[in-house]
Amino acid sequence: MELLSSTKSFGGWLKRYKHESLSVKSEMTFAIYLPPQAETQKVPVLYWLSGLTCNDENFTQKAGAFRKAAELGLAIVCPDTSPRGMDYPNEHESYDFGSAAGFYINATVEPYSNTYHMYDYVVQELPHLVEANFPVTDKRSISGHSMGGHGALICALKNPGKYQSVSAFAPIVNPTNCPWGEKAFTGYLGEDIATWNEWDATLLIENASERLPLFIDQGEADNFLVEQLKPEALEAACEKAGHPITLRRQPGYDHSYFFIASFIDDHLEHHSRALG
Amino acid sequence: MELLSSTKSFGGWLKRYKHESLSVKSEMTFAIYLPPQAETQKVPVLYWLSGLTCNDENFTQKAGAFRKAAELGLAIVCPDTSPRGMDYPNEHESYDFGSAAGFYINATVEPYSNTYHMYDYVVQELPHLVEANFPVTDKRSISGHSMGGHGALICALKNPGKYQSVSAFAPIVNPTNCPWGEKAFTGYLGEDIATWNEWDATLLIENASERLPLFIDQGEADNFLVEQLKPEALEAACEKAGHPITLRRQPGYDHSYFFIASFIDDHLEHHSRALG
Repeated sequence: MELLSSTKSFGGWLKRYKHESLSVKSEMTFAIYLPPQAETQKVPVLYWLSGLTCNDENFTQKAGAFRKAAELGLAIVCPDTSPRGMDYPNEHESYDFGSAAGFYINATVEPYSNTYHMYDYVVQELPHLVEANFPVTDKRSISGHSMGGHGALICALKNPGKYQSVSAFAPIVNPTNCPWGEKAFTGYLGEDIATWNEWDATLLIENASERLPLFIDQGEADNFLVEQLKPEALEAACEKAGHPITLRRQPGYDHSYFFIASFIDDHLEHHSRALG
Repeated sequence: MELLSSTKSFGGWLKRYKHESLSVKSEMTFAIYLPPQAETQKVPVLYWLSGLTCNDENFTQKAGAFRKAAELGLAIVCPDTSPRGMDYPNEHESYDFGSAAGFYINATVEPYSNTYHMYDYVVQELPHLVEANFPVTDKRSISGHSMGGHGALICALKNPGKYQSVSAFAPIVNPTNCPWGEKAFTGYLGEDIATWNEWDATLLIENASERLPLFIDQGEADNFLVEQLKPEALEAACEKAGHPITLRRQPGYDHSYFFIASFIDDHLEHHSRALG
């Protein structure tokens, strides 16, 4: 790991690192916020997964999360949203596929299958790296926005016991049934849609072995609500399976980080309670 | 005024407008945050002046100020940092002169003297526009960062009674005696340095007719501290003149918005107390 920058914030430190990732076979950048408590004790970690077009900096600069994280003694780790540095066909042509759009899955279609293993990176490699190098406990929670909300939900649902809590802002809850998800899954997983199902939170609910409560905020003025996000699909699946979900529809709020900032404190408190 | 966007944030609304400015003779963009209280009553206004390279968006996206502004019932107005749309000699060549570097003064050297009247814009035109078009009182306070901290200090010191309070983050307190200020003042005001003095907070202190307390935060790890910012010059002038100043030196903090975000709540509370 190479330290890129270190910035004091709310008595703690925001640090950015780059490292050679084994799972995505490229150089990856991530950020970690260490609250003041980390100077004298190990602290639990919230993983934050960002949305389309983002990198590790959007959340750190715009979410306004560190005040509450410093109060609660919570570290926050922000990975990038895709591998970087390749030049695959169609990788850099659109905002919703390829670079900055890794969808937190493991690709199976070449050439993306060579490096687009964001699921392995986020679930395995990054926690391993973080827990080996920083004053953190092995208690983890996960959250994210939009594509990253989808990522947080599938990471939690596919890994019982790995996360103490999960939440999301405006997540893509049913990617097998919306344009963003269909485009990405076709490109990363191919035409056999049976292989898509294991990466879809709404479809994972039925067989979830752990009933980890889902905590979700969704803006009602979100331009992507009807066509891409469809929280009602996840809500219905949870109702059918008896899976606990709190879905808050926030009147007037859009898809931006101004929405996230308005409610991030509630999410951090939710995770802090679960992390103990 | 033309509304560019309207975004809900912490129960209030962040709105961006463009308008034809009379004082700077060009189209200007500004942002206003209206807290929830503005739906039913008039609220006081804090003017925020941003630093070099910024526009109206840096503060709104990165300062994390709206949570506390919503709690206190404080509107925040963020102007741009220079006129836009011209193409004067040397206007767009460097980050510290011309576009995004108006220094909140009235230029006297052609061609800048035609439009670079950011002082008139911030002190006269913008408050007039804001108070005529939004549910705000005529109680005003002013703050800013770096070049904008300089701007906030000179606006307050040159206009007794106009502002209820003033504060600054890492301000350029003595622009007649630092490279940023010398370059800007030479370009905007010319070689006669006697004309510079009325735009320098440290030099204005001696004859300030109103003893408005100065509230300043300065990061001790700020890369610009020694060469450009020199808060000790203002501190000495205040001590000599008996002008009240609170200068907090914050160990470990740099010049970034992570520094501003860490202490913005203290500034908003300072202004809210003064605004009543």
